[in-house]
Amino acid sequence: MNQLPKIGRYSFRVEQYQCNVRKMLRFSSLVNIMLSAADYHSTERGFGTIYLNEMGKTWVLSRLAVEMERIPSRHQEITIETWIDKVHPLFTSRNFRALSKEGEVLGWGRSVWAMIDTTTRHPVDLMEIHDGLITTFIVKPEDKEYLEVPIDRPAKIQLDEPSLFRIDNTYFSDVDFNGHINSMRYVDHVLDIFPLSWHKKNNIKRLDIAFIAEGRPEIPIKIYGTFNHPDYLFKIMQDLPENSEESEACRLRLRTIPLVGADL
Amino acid sequence: MNQLPKIGRYSFRVEQYQCNVRKMLRFSSLVNIMLSAADYHSTERGFGTIYLNEMGKTWVLSRLAVEMERIPSRHQEITIETWIDKVHPLFTSRNFRALSKEGEVLGWGRSVWAMIDTTTRHPVDLMEIHDGLITTFIVKPEDKEYLEVPIDRPAKIQLDEPSLFRIDNTYFSDVDFNGHINSMRYVDHVLDIFPLSWHKKNNIKRLDIAFIAEGRPEIPIKIYGTFNHPDYLFKIMQDLPENSEESEACRLRLRTIPLVGADL
Repeated sequence: MNQLPKIGRYSFRVEQYQCNVRKMLRFSSLVNIMLSAADYHSTERGFGTIYLNEMGKTWVLSRLAVEMERIPSRHQEITIETWIDKVHPLFTSRNFRALSKEGEVLGWGRSVWAMIDTTTRHPVDLMEIHDGLITTFIVKPEDKEYLEVPIDRPAKIQLDEPSLFRIDNTYFSDVDFNGHINSMRYVDHVLDIFPLSWHKKNNIKRLDIAFIAEGRPEIPIKIYGTFNHPDYLFKIMQDLPENSEESEACRLRLRTIPLVGADL
Repeated sequence: MNQLPKIGRYSFRVEQYQCNVRKMLRFSSLVNIMLSAADYHSTERGFGTIYLNEMGKTWVLSRLAVEMERIPSRHQEITIETWIDKVHPLFTSRNFRALSKEGEVLGWGRSVWAMIDTTTRHPVDLMEIHDGLITTFIVKPEDKEYLEVPIDRPAKIQLDEPSLFRIDNTYFSDVDFNGHINSMRYVDHVLDIFPLSWHKKNNIKRLDIAFIAEGRPEIPIKIYGTFNHPDYLFKIMQDLPENSEESEACRLRLRTIPLVGADL
């Protein structure tokens, strides 16, 4: 397993059903593809969720930023590169680069993950997995292209006096393979606040997410938000039966740019 | 283009994010994969939507049935075979077979498509496209394996005294690249009527859909349904501003089997 290259490269086709009304890859599908690449990279190298689950451990995504130069469109083949940037005892940072088939850089991603015990939900030491095998995959000065990514780290998201925008019920289709609310469904719910006419005129340039607690299915999510030019800021809350106060699931920041000369 | 084989074969990986709480491919994602295969098959052979759209025409899915022997699970590689079964002047039938990497037949699909003029929305003659090129791809007696599919044709779906189960708003995430409600989002909305506890105990064996009119985004869908053992029957209606009566978008039939010895 540790003979594999540090950089994982995975190709994906942009399927028609993953596209939005502008025939471009939905942002939530794009991030899902990046997370798939992370899943393959860690699985092949001996520290993926299937292996960890057998030992009562799992990865949880803590923070994520994705910033795009260009969103790929229907039928395009794209490559997602992903690699381990840094490893600390209790979390690890993983970066991403998205490329077109012709090698054009489409965008970048940065993420922070923790490994937790699935029973106690407490963080576990990454070094316990195959004697710290993960550290052999950290990029080194000789991996020049991958040492620095040209986008800011995942943002610290602060909301001043947010308003309640919407309360959405959560159902089977919101639930992931772990039994929690799928992280990208939060993105869909937040993007659904904007009408179709807005989506036809605005590109999503960058998305930041900070996960606070796993969302519980079949309990509504309350989406609070505010606009702080050029950013839309959101937090997702739930009323859990055991708590008297609302519980926070995650925060999101959306940076958009108006569309120029788009094919509508 | 007409040197290509009649049967198209496309491989897909079951990505983690396409899986449900049982770590199996969601039924809506499975059908989306089949529709992607149809898209590739028709595109490569000169009668895909991109080519048709340039001529002011498009394919619309009229009826569909998918019946599964086994639902693939996370990380599995599957192959979708698809081919043209019959061609009539105003519609064409296309079949599907899903296989595991080891060649096990996982399930089958049957579908009926019409070609329409995107302005008038009226059917157009399939023979107008490259002088009836599509007919050269119809399976023949020598394509033995593909001549007969072992599942019933898409069902005629009749509902006796259905009840209104739910009214769901529709948003950006419900809209497909054509600007209509995505056909598989209907399946998600219908499956969302069943609680998570039901999904943990029931497998979807077969899905039938009949499309009546394209769903209009940003207008709620009203899901009516009834149970007629062993089938759940649904119809999706919308209140369109220009009509005094409800308009029907589609009908669905769901056949399920209880789960035996599943990994919950």
